[in-house]
Amino acid sequence: MLLVNESDVLAVIRERVQTTDPRVLLGPGDDLAEVLVGDEAASLLVGVDQVVDGLHVLAARVSWDRIGGKAMRRALSDVAAMAGTPLASVASVVLPPNALDTDIKALCKGLHETAAAFDAPLVGGDVAIHRLPDHPLSVSVTVLATPVPPGPVRRNGACDGDLLVVTGHLGGSLEDGGGGSHLDFTPRISEALHLRELFGKGLHAMIDISDGLGRDAGRLAEAAGLQAHIEAEKLPRRPAASIAAAMGDGEDYELLMAVAKDAEVPDSVPGDHGPCPLTVIGHFAPNPAGDDRRVVVFGEDGQEDASECGWDHGQ
Amino acid sequence: MLLVNESDVLAVIRERVQTTDPRVLLGPGDDLAEVLVGDEAASLLVGVDQVVDGLHVLAARVSWDRIGGKAMRRALSDVAAMAGTPLASVASVVLPPNALDTDIKALCKGLHETAAAFDAPLVGGDVAIHRLPDHPLSVSVTVLATPVPPGPVRRNGACDGDLLVVTGHLGGSLEDGGGGSHLDFTPRISEALHLRELFGKGLHAMIDISDGLGRDAGRLAEAAGLQAHIEAEKLPRRPAASIAAAMGDGEDYELLMAVAKDAEVPDSVPGDHGPCPLTVIGHFAPNPAGDDRRVVVFGEDGQEDASECGWDHGQ
Repeated sequence: MLLVNESDVLAVIRERVQTTDPRVLLGPGDDLAEVLVGDEAASLLVGVDQVVDGLHVLAARVSWDRIGGKAMRRALSDVAAMAGTPLASVASVVLPPNALDTDIKALCKGLHETAAAFDAPLVGGDVAIHRLPDHPLSVSVTVLATPVPPGPVRRNGACDGDLLVVTGHLGGSLEDGGGGSHLDFTPRISEALHLRELFGKGLHAMIDISDGLGRDAGRLAEAAGLQAHIEAEKLPRRPAASIAAAMGDGEDYELLMAVAKDAEVPDSVPGDHGPCPLTVIGHFAPNPAGDDRRVVVFGEDGQEDASECGWDHGQ
Repeated sequence: MLLVNESDVLAVIRERVQTTDPRVLLGPGDDLAEVLVGDEAASLLVGVDQVVDGLHVLAARVSWDRIGGKAMRRALSDVAAMAGTPLASVASVVLPPNALDTDIKALCKGLHETAAAFDAPLVGGDVAIHRLPDHPLSVSVTVLATPVPPGPVRRNGACDGDLLVVTGHLGGSLEDGGGGSHLDFTPRISEALHLRELFGKGLHAMIDISDGLGRDAGRLAEAAGLQAHIEAEKLPRRPAASIAAAMGDGEDYELLMAVAKDAEVPDSVPGDHGPCPLTVIGHFAPNPAGDDRRVVVFGEDGQEDASECGWDHGQ
């Protein structure tokens, strides 16, 4: 049997990969795992993400420092999603045999400088050079982080009535030149730490939007056994982005969260590049009987199922 | 310019990747890096290794559970090389689009069961499915470990006069059926912990033999600014393995170490599968003036430069 999408593959893997090791506080299934370190005095967040030529980026069209940067940013975005503090990173790379040394140095520069900029120094790596001349470049980044009190923000904590809140603007991330930012986006790490401080335990659940608002809102809803209701006209869209683009474009890397319904949500939160907009776009509600839609968008023309809006990156 | 081998690429990367972050106790260049965690109460070892179809394994000829197992074992062997205690692991995989679900499940089983067997539970992962039909399978494993007092055993501690000691038997690791073991070797983790206890601070330096005895002995020698002298007739060879095979076959994954010259080296050390042989195969000496050979083998026919004996996996 062929497993044609990455979500199916990950479902198979998660089913098998269960551990009863008491050092594992949080296993596979969230943005990062959490393990106890050193006589259980501290805990650590860890996760891995990758960028593959032909899937996430076109290596022939983009300078390789941006590819290295993107691989590091993707991994760091998972740290933001759990409101962690970056600690360190390692990277592994498979190179095509005809890679130029200038490209390899640029890739390394992008990894290293991005890691340093977000306080996750690159401390190790592995390189393999493939023999196939057209072997696509692939870059895998593992990031380590430490949780912030009262602990990492998970995906599964949304409650009935919680507000659905998003940072920044959505849509159009894949259009280079048109405000597209899928290569150079800012992982919302400092924003996440501010959000944790602002909402405290009222920050019930969080995820970074890597596969599109529809799919990622669906993950929060599914993990909590609820339905997410989104009001189309409230979506904070990038200039020229349609509602469909805001719902379905992957790789926005904004934070999407469930916040206690009585919380006061300000218009913005401090971030690395100044204030970052914060928008309430809907709320969580129980699933009506017989209705297994995870995400419903309410707009001028009525309501629509948006659970599948986005890319199947399988995260 | 083309950088045709992995050592050159890694040299370029290490040159660029230097960090002054005080949380980084040990950066790139050893088997694993060491970072401080959680108010500096504990430290953590971390490193990444990969297995790529066509380079380290032939995916069409081997069941995929052994590929997953090998990827995990390679990473765990680096934990052994530093005498650490495994903590957890994460894996990233790029699959060809025509991978069968039975193969994917087997790969996952191999990763998971091997990780569990060595107390490094697999806590996270990422999967990408490439669109190229002949995209080779690649598996990257990041391993986390904790150091054991008095700290991790590094590569660079060999002293003039130190004994050069190796675990197990060498050569022929790539011949399946003939005792070949490059897929199913045992990472010498428990042996390393016993060696640390046995020799204490007299265990000056250690590395796992992944690229061949010549190259890896050369790394210990180079890191210490010394020359390694090996006596050919002392090499603990596998049945039917020649001296050249013992010197040059990669993927033995035995431990090679520099031990204080006054230490008593027993014939074996306890390990996961019973006693593991321990053999003194030579010693470290200063480089004679004008002689930049890193490894010299002394045999019946005189002496020979063995610094390049092995594979350029670039570790």
